[in-house]
Amino acid sequence: MTTSRLFSPDLQQTLDLIGIFVFALSGGLLAVRKNLDIFGIAVLAEATALGGGLLRDLIIGAVPPAAFQNRGYFFTPLVATAVVFFLHPEVARINNAVQFLDALGLGLFCVTGTAKAHDYGLSSVAAVALGVVTAAGGGVVRDLLVSEVPSLLRWDRSLYAVPALVGSILTAVLITVHDFDAVTGTTAALVAFTVRMLALRYEWRAPRAWHRGSSSSGEEESG
Amino acid sequence: MTTSRLFSPDLQQTLDLIGIFVFALSGGLLAVRKNLDIFGIAVLAEATALGGGLLRDLIIGAVPPAAFQNRGYFFTPLVATAVVFFLHPEVARINNAVQFLDALGLGLFCVTGTAKAHDYGLSSVAAVALGVVTAAGGGVVRDLLVSEVPSLLRWDRSLYAVPALVGSILTAVLITVHDFDAVTGTTAALVAFTVRMLALRYEWRAPRAWHRGSSSSGEEESG
Amino acid sequence: MTTSRLFSPDLQQTLDLIGIFVFALSGGLLAVRKNLDIFGIAVLAEATALGGGLLRDLIIGAVPPAAFQNRGYFFTPLVATAVVFFLHPEVARINNAVQFLDALGLGLFCVTGTAKAHDYGLSSVAAVALGVVTAAGGGVVRDLLVSEVPSLLRWDRSLYAVPALVGSILTAVLITVHDFDAVTGTTAALVAFTVRMLALRYEWRAPRAWHRGSSSSGEEESG
Repeated sequence: MTTSRLFSPDLQQTLDLIGIFVFALSGGLLAVRKNLDIFGIAVLAEATALGGGLLRDLIIGAVPPAAFQNRGYFFTPLVATAVVFFLHPEVARINNAVQFLDALGLGLFCVTGTAKAHDYGLSSVAAVALGVVTAAGGGVVRDLLVSEVPSLLRWDRSLYAVPALVGSILTAVLITVHDFDAVTGTTAALVAFTVRMLALRYEWRAPRAWHRGSSSSGEEESG
Repeated sequence: MTTSRLFSPDLQQTLDLIGIFVFALSGGLLAVRKNLDIFGIAVLAEATALGGGLLRDLIIGAVPPAAFQNRGYFFTPLVATAVVFFLHPEVARINNAVQFLDALGLGLFCVTGTAKAHDYGLSSVAAVALGVVTAAGGGVVRDLLVSEVPSLLRWDRSLYAVPALVGSILTAVLITVHDFDAVTGTTAALVAFTVRMLALRYEWRAPRAWHRGSSSSGEEESG
Repeated sequence: MTTSRLFSPDLQQTLDLIGIFVFALSGGLLAVRKNLDIFGIAVLAEATALGGGLLRDLIIGAVPPAAFQNRGYFFTPLVATAVVFFLHPEVARINNAVQFLDALGLGLFCVTGTAKAHDYGLSSVAAVALGVVTAAGGGVVRDLLVSEVPSLLRWDRSLYAVPALVGSILTAVLITVHDFDAVTGTTAALVAFTVRMLALRYEWRAPRAWHRGSSSSGEEESG
């Protein structure tokens, strides 16, 4: 039943909090770049860290969502807020480390998100979609809150949805063949992590539509 | 009880999928104009096609939402994504046909959305509001995802909310007088469709506030 | 159990409707400044007035949300829409009165929002967060719908989240020590109201991150 617990509750909680902390850092850094005040930093940190899981929980009917039941989930982004508030140049300088940890969070959350959706009785296809929502939804909420087109959707950013999709599909397959446990689940998370790191390293991008420019070139230039 | 099924399940499903497909096309075309990559196209196609019904289902407590329970609902926007990806100049060229089908989807979804909300015990007023949300909500989500003021709200676009409102009110009246069946429901959908087509043909627009410019002219010009 | 009812149902309902009306005015005025048509005004009025409570109800699982169960909640923003449509220069001119009433709505909603979340079994921390969401969420939805960075998050606006936070924390403390009633609840709302009025009067602002400009000055100027 509770296949979403890959590990002992303590280890699972620790991993969740690391992922939440790093996602919150990315939200807080964007808030600083957008010149928001400390409450704006806190809201973006919370929304980035918890937005994806919140959407998933609303959709599968797990209310109140985990974000509102677990104190650590709520306070961890506030710690990240304080770190960004006082140390944001230092945090921005270790951007590579932040992206490394962000990729770890991505890997972890697409696996646990898919597994939780499956636990609530959703089909494999829906569980995969919700795994991607869990891993990538917070970043979409973050960008929308500062009126930017979500970087997830943009052509000129490295792949983010694809690694989450790979990890989610692997997880759904493992669950279907009854082979989902701490070892295989960790492997799925590491595969997603690796794909994301490769996408960052080699600037992998997804293709845009064919024949661009033939009928809508004017719009594209201004788009 | 199940007044939301106007037709045989097969016919209902076919009509739903046509509406979803066309809404997905409109999302995909906007994504191409905004220069998004193939995943951006897919996300906008899914969000436009399923966003309105998803909001409705979250509000009435129908979780998991239909969008996550019906495989066809999920895969149809992906087919639309492929069509837009390879053939978007051709799709953009038949814009009139897309708008025709979009108006059909609008008519269908305001009727089925109102009926489903009623099935879940909401009052007529709330059911009408949710009929409009079902028909028009996906387009709002679509525009927000690319940082545009929703065309639904804009003065310089043809009426979209009014046709949905007309269809939803007709449906609520029909349900109240116990006269809602395949024939009258189809009629309500066709009325909404017709109002939308007339609004497109004659560029019907809604009025803006009176006395604009007297106290806030500066803001208006820049708005 | 029903600690969220501070007063007799009639008085509570009257206060709620006043708060909803004033929040709807602020939404409608922004819609006029953005040159939206009458439906845009109505949508922004509804979303601003009911958005915060709607988010709270979805998160605590109170579906259908109060916004869709109480006719007065739905029609009051439409009255505000009519007022803004015909009289917006006059409404804009009495901006001080609108901000006064908005501060009253802020005070009321952070208290009732916190209390309702507590009634549904959420922890004090989560209840405080949802009190802030109830009071401030509608304004965030309002700004997002017209593609603006929410004024709640912006450095150059007077404090809004802090007064809501003060009122919500006071309420949670009162509930915890079993001292929450009409008198103490009203006091908490008035404290939040007073903090907001002082913030407006003296243009209190929250600090931005330390060391801005050292590592990301280019982005800041354009942000």
